[in-house]
Amino acid sequence: MDEEILQLLRKHPSTFHSGEEISRRLQVSRTAIWKRIRHLRSLGYEIEASTRAGYRLIQSPDLLTPSEVKSSLKTEWMGKVIHYFTRLDSTNSKAYELATRGAEEGEVVISESQEKGRGRLGRNWFSPPHLNLYLSVILRPKIPPHQAPLITLMAAVATAEAIEENTGLRPLIKWPNDILLRGRKVAGLLNEIKSETDRIHFVILGIGMNLNMDEKMFPQGIRSLATSLKRELGRTISRRDLLSSLLQKLEEWYAVFLKEGGEAILRAWRSRAQIKGKRLKVTSFGESITGTGVDVDSDGALILETRSGERKRVVAGDIEYTR
Amino acid sequence: MDEEILQLLRKHPSTFHSGEEISRRLQVSRTAIWKRIRHLRSLGYEIEASTRAGYRLIQSPDLLTPSEVKSSLKTEWMGKVIHYFTRLDSTNSKAYELATRGAEEGEVVISESQEKGRGRLGRNWFSPPHLNLYLSVILRPKIPPHQAPLITLMAAVATAEAIEENTGLRPLIKWPNDILLRGRKVAGLLNEIKSETDRIHFVILGIGMNLNMDEKMFPQGIRSLATSLKRELGRTISRRDLLSSLLQKLEEWYAVFLKEGGEAILRAWRSRAQIKGKRLKVTSFGESITGTGVDVDSDGALILETRSGERKRVVAGDIEYTR
Repeated sequence: MDEEILQLLRKHPSTFHSGEEISRRLQVSRTAIWKRIRHLRSLGYEIEASTRAGYRLIQSPDLLTPSEVKSSLKTEWMGKVIHYFTRLDSTNSKAYELATRGAEEGEVVISESQEKGRGRLGRNWFSPPHLNLYLSVILRPKIPPHQAPLITLMAAVATAEAIEENTGLRPLIKWPNDILLRGRKVAGLLNEIKSETDRIHFVILGIGMNLNMDEKMFPQGIRSLATSLKRELGRTISRRDLLSSLLQKLEEWYAVFLKEGGEAILRAWRSRAQIKGKRLKVTSFGESITGTGVDVDSDGALILETRSGERKRVVAGDIEYTR
Repeated sequence: MDEEILQLLRKHPSTFHSGEEISRRLQVSRTAIWKRIRHLRSLGYEIEASTRAGYRLIQSPDLLTPSEVKSSLKTEWMGKVIHYFTRLDSTNSKAYELATRGAEEGEVVISESQEKGRGRLGRNWFSPPHLNLYLSVILRPKIPPHQAPLITLMAAVATAEAIEENTGLRPLIKWPNDILLRGRKVAGLLNEIKSETDRIHFVILGIGMNLNMDEKMFPQGIRSLATSLKRELGRTISRRDLLSSLLQKLEEWYAVFLKEGGEAILRAWRSRAQIKGKRLKVTSFGESITGTGVDVDSDGALILETRSGERKRVVAGDIEYTR
């Protein structure tokens, strides 16, 4: 019922809606309406109430409820179904579970906080409530499994562009899927895949982005390595607006990938990645290689040249810029 | 308790065990023992009962219960935990569910029948009860996801060898993972993988093998395409013995793969596959290519040469021998 009241109030935001009108439309008592209005206020909705004139919506809180997100969403199909939670172990785990039970391409899981937020390779992702974005998108691309890394690169490009659009800052990408501002991680991706040998059942595209965390909120261990948009800009960023941009960019770039293939993704990715000519140390499956970055190949693998001139192809791991 | 009674009877198969002895060891009444013996007989165990001397195991049925399988299993770790079912939707689905909840490498799911047995690319696998083998093995290899197809090739080699060991027949492999006898499919593999961009969480190695089905039991549509060991040999094959061989071969070849890498697998695979010099038609993601088979590459992809001399690499799909 909260959603229905909000829809009504949003339709004509400047005018009052009488309790009688709302009560008639929703077929509930005026006392029931008043109780819901009180509840909405407790969630952060600023609603003016006048005994004579009725109710008027002044301002909405920066919540990521389906109703709030959809009010600003401009996508054609992505995020048309949103599974919203105030708390989850991990949005990826929930999305994986939903996809296993048949959830469709484009369905999105959003949580205000994560108890066990996960990063790549089994690492944690710090996920305090209400300040950041934690979401997972279900995709069902008809591509062979070995192309799945391109989905990661595609999502990195979309994430960087969404940040740029909302802040004017220019994020760079660190192979394979960290989004950096001034060398510090502001967003990360975790893609989980269910596949058989020659087809993908689904991909869960998990994105965590630090928006409004202050410097002192970061755990000591990652304070010098991570940042938030607020820390870089000095002001608060609307989570809802950024989420809308992000889903739109994802929808656009995913369409480009399916239509034009990986090369279009790689071009956009390369222009934001710091690979070519950089001295890199790559750690992969417990082994380290040092070399100069050359490129990423058509499957998204990193190519680097060792001091002896040998070219190495690395499909997984972490890189460090050594100068 | 059935298991405990069988263990006792198996220990000294030629001698009688008195009801009193069994009752004392298992701490239950003699009436309870008698009820369990009756139950075991209903499952197909031939147990001689003498009022004076007690009970004696004459013959065990060809069941795939953990107790029966373990009595002949010679592996070091694979199949030490067996999840046994008389009926399942699909052993792969059950194993996937168990692996998601933390089941360990080497745990095996076996079912006497499958209601929704699945083959590659969403196809069905005909799975009538008690005649064949339907099993899924949980593996957790520490390899990059793009090497997962090698697990499929490895399993195809192990499956072919297990059949050869038990029957003397020499199965061939049809890329990527069908096992053929005289050109007809006798076994098939379906590997399902949970991964993230740069690591595998687990692989479910699903194997279906036709053992004791008569020709007339095959559905009309696949009668000319599929066969069973019994149809080829003219005699019944012990499912338990074949399962034991299969798990042992899988354990051996998996160790070879992890220790020596893909090349060792590919060598064994090539010697059973009909690729080189064969005229092939490959259908992959809705498109068909015709050419001459050249080899499989280090990731298990099929290489073929078209009439114009161009080499094509195919990662997924179906092949047909065109002459």
